[in-house]
Amino acid sequence: MSLIVQKYGGTSVGSVERLRAVAERVARYKAKGHQMVVVVSAMSGETNRLIALAKQIQENPDPRELDVMVSTGEQVTIALLSMALKDLGLKAKSYTGAQVRILTDNAYTKARILSIDEQKMRADLDAGNVVVVAGFQGVDEEGNITTLGRGGSDTTGVALAAALHADECQIYTDVDGVYTTDPRIVPEARRLATITFEEMLEMASLGSKVLQIRSVEFAGKYKVKLRVLSSFGAEGDGTLITFEENDKMEQAIISGIAFNRDEAKITVLGVPDRPGVAFQILGPVADANIDVDMIVQNVGHENTTDFTFTVHRNEYAKALDICRKTAAQIGAREVTADDKIAKVSVVGVGMRSHVGIAKTMFEALSREGINLQMISTSEIKISVVVEDKYMELAVRVLHHAFHLEKAA
Amino acid sequence: MSLIVQKYGGTSVGSVERLRAVAERVARYKAKGHQMVVVVSAMSGETNRLIALAKQIQENPDPRELDVMVSTGEQVTIALLSMALKDLGLKAKSYTGAQVRILTDNAYTKARILSIDEQKMRADLDAGNVVVVAGFQGVDEEGNITTLGRGGSDTTGVALAAALHADECQIYTDVDGVYTTDPRIVPEARRLATITFEEMLEMASLGSKVLQIRSVEFAGKYKVKLRVLSSFGAEGDGTLITFEENDKMEQAIISGIAFNRDEAKITVLGVPDRPGVAFQILGPVADANIDVDMIVQNVGHENTTDFTFTVHRNEYAKALDICRKTAAQIGAREVTADDKIAKVSVVGVGMRSHVGIAKTMFEALSREGINLQMISTSEIKISVVVEDKYMELAVRVLHHAFHLEKAA
Repeated sequence: MSLIVQKYGGTSVGSVERLRAVAERVARYKAKGHQMVVVVSAMSGETNRLIALAKQIQENPDPRELDVMVSTGEQVTIALLSMALKDLGLKAKSYTGAQVRILTDNAYTKARILSIDEQKMRADLDAGNVVVVAGFQGVDEEGNITTLGRGGSDTTGVALAAALHADECQIYTDVDGVYTTDPRIVPEARRLATITFEEMLEMASLGSKVLQIRSVEFAGKYKVKLRVLSSFGAEGDGTLITFEENDKMEQAIISGIAFNRDEAKITVLGVPDRPGVAFQILGPVADANIDVDMIVQNVGHENTTDFTFTVHRNEYAKALDICRKTAAQIGAREVTADDKIAKVSVVGVGMRSHVGIAKTMFEALSREGINLQMISTSEIKISVVVEDKYMELAVRVLHHAFHLEKAA
Repeated sequence: MSLIVQKYGGTSVGSVERLRAVAERVARYKAKGHQMVVVVSAMSGETNRLIALAKQIQENPDPRELDVMVSTGEQVTIALLSMALKDLGLKAKSYTGAQVRILTDNAYTKARILSIDEQKMRADLDAGNVVVVAGFQGVDEEGNITTLGRGGSDTTGVALAAALHADECQIYTDVDGVYTTDPRIVPEARRLATITFEEMLEMASLGSKVLQIRSVEFAGKYKVKLRVLSSFGAEGDGTLITFEENDKMEQAIISGIAFNRDEAKITVLGVPDRPGVAFQILGPVADANIDVDMIVQNVGHENTTDFTFTVHRNEYAKALDICRKTAAQIGAREVTADDKIAKVSVVGVGMRSHVGIAKTMFEALSREGINLQMISTSEIKISVVVEDKYMELAVRVLHHAFHLEKAA
């Protein structure tokens, strides 16, 4: 007998039929003797409907009240799923975030989980209940309702698995696992049986939006065994995300090719090459709450250097505006920018111990005449920025160059 | 400075525009220096939408889960109203039933309020906040969400007023007060400036559905000053419901004419005239959860008597079926029944000290040739059952006979 936490997103509970399908899957696991905790999101479309309603009242809805409102979405789903489970003859009990005291800080709309009181759930599980918990929400020390921000239901699932020392946390989504790359771009892309947390973090932040990054970090911190599966179609094994490299029996050098065309790059040219300049450029950007992804600065020449970074395209205009002001203040020569770019990365824990990955990568891209605008590396990935029209070609070329279509 | 509790029903908060109108009225009261607590229902249609969704999953939705689900309706409204108040520059804070610990028993879907923790609200009020509370819902001792049943938001309003020792509890609805009778039947019907609790109870239970009966009982028990007002159109004084007869300065003999055509009557003829027979007849009806309204039994003759009672028309067939079985068991002669009836009542605390009310009533009805099928009296009302086609005529005749079109 295992204790399994399953998390279902909005599309998996988006209709009465789908809710029934979820209940049936939970029942199959229960029939095998497992203790089951199920975390659900709001039915697809519901959160957006509520936010739109709030915006009719207040252009910028008060965050405390927005959380009170938006949290009703999951509250409806937990009740419906519990009813569906009871309809199958199972014992089930629903809980809001406040009811199982998912204690968070008081940062409304983007709260962080501090602790979970697992006693009530434990007693219910021991009494044979399926415990159904609202994802995405919690309560602060004063009893105010909070939400964890978009995708927060994944984090709820992982946090519950950690608190209950669950044997596995299963995240059900609309894909059946993590692939070597997007099958829409490379038809030979292959589902990975396992992937390490670090790779998953790189894959997620690079645009393979299977799991919310924060939930992966959380799982890594608390060593929760995380599995991504599909809630549609046939039941497969999905992809297991492991927290130790050794868990991965057959170590591949490269696990996958990630990509992202949501970014834009901004370059400040002729920056005085002196300490503190990077801070002077990025400080105002950060103050404006703009997330920066890649940052590249090369060695200077003639006492100046060039400083390049990428931001989300939605924040491109705002960031550019800020940088032009900063450039004038610090005496930089010029600001150039480009939003027709794409980032392509090869990811794999195996590359740590293998030289030559960069060589293979750059060689494959150069053979196709794809110019590299930026290069950035970490322990387990190499990212390049290319003109966006070359993105799909680059992904296909790299997938083939590293033989990802074949099992490791 | 007074502390005022205002309660707004579903139609009063049924749209963004109406929510804004409510916020504006609250702001006007706040500007006069009052401390304000506002209780709101779910937006009109929302509760029914949620129940319909639940019924798609479970034909008879699990009551605990139904309450979890249905309570989201008010939760959305409190957030929206708080946003609307903030949009007007006011300080506001919303609370669910659980958050202000409206403690109830655990009778899901029809829970009763046991206590309210008013400390949090008091602190918020003292800090200048408008406190917005979800009506209709509470929480049991174990933290489970409960609802008070249909119309329960009125009860929440009165209970909060009692807990906070509010100066007045204002119930906003779609009528601007309690009338001497339904103006659609008698155009000269007049709004009453005051009415006593006892009269209001009779008026409500007799079909003048302005307020939920339970909230009126509650107000009487805790001596809450209750006022019924309209949330639409011009601001009037509504009708003040007083808990002491002396509060009513100009004592009218009769306050109003109530009526009800939702009932049906069942008569068991030739019942053996012996102790316990009334119990034998009504016991099985009560066991089937059928509410009985009027009960009339006249003196017997030749060792038998006739026993008549009325039930809601929806339960007429079921009650009739039960009575036929009972009649056979106890050796009664026959069961007759009629669902083409209406009940008409004159109500007024003044009739206690005035003889001749019955005479005036019966005389007026007989002048129109209206036959009385049943008569039943209490301290402050006289009810008659007539053929339903005469109901409107009877109401008009009685309204005129007691000069209700003129102020007392």
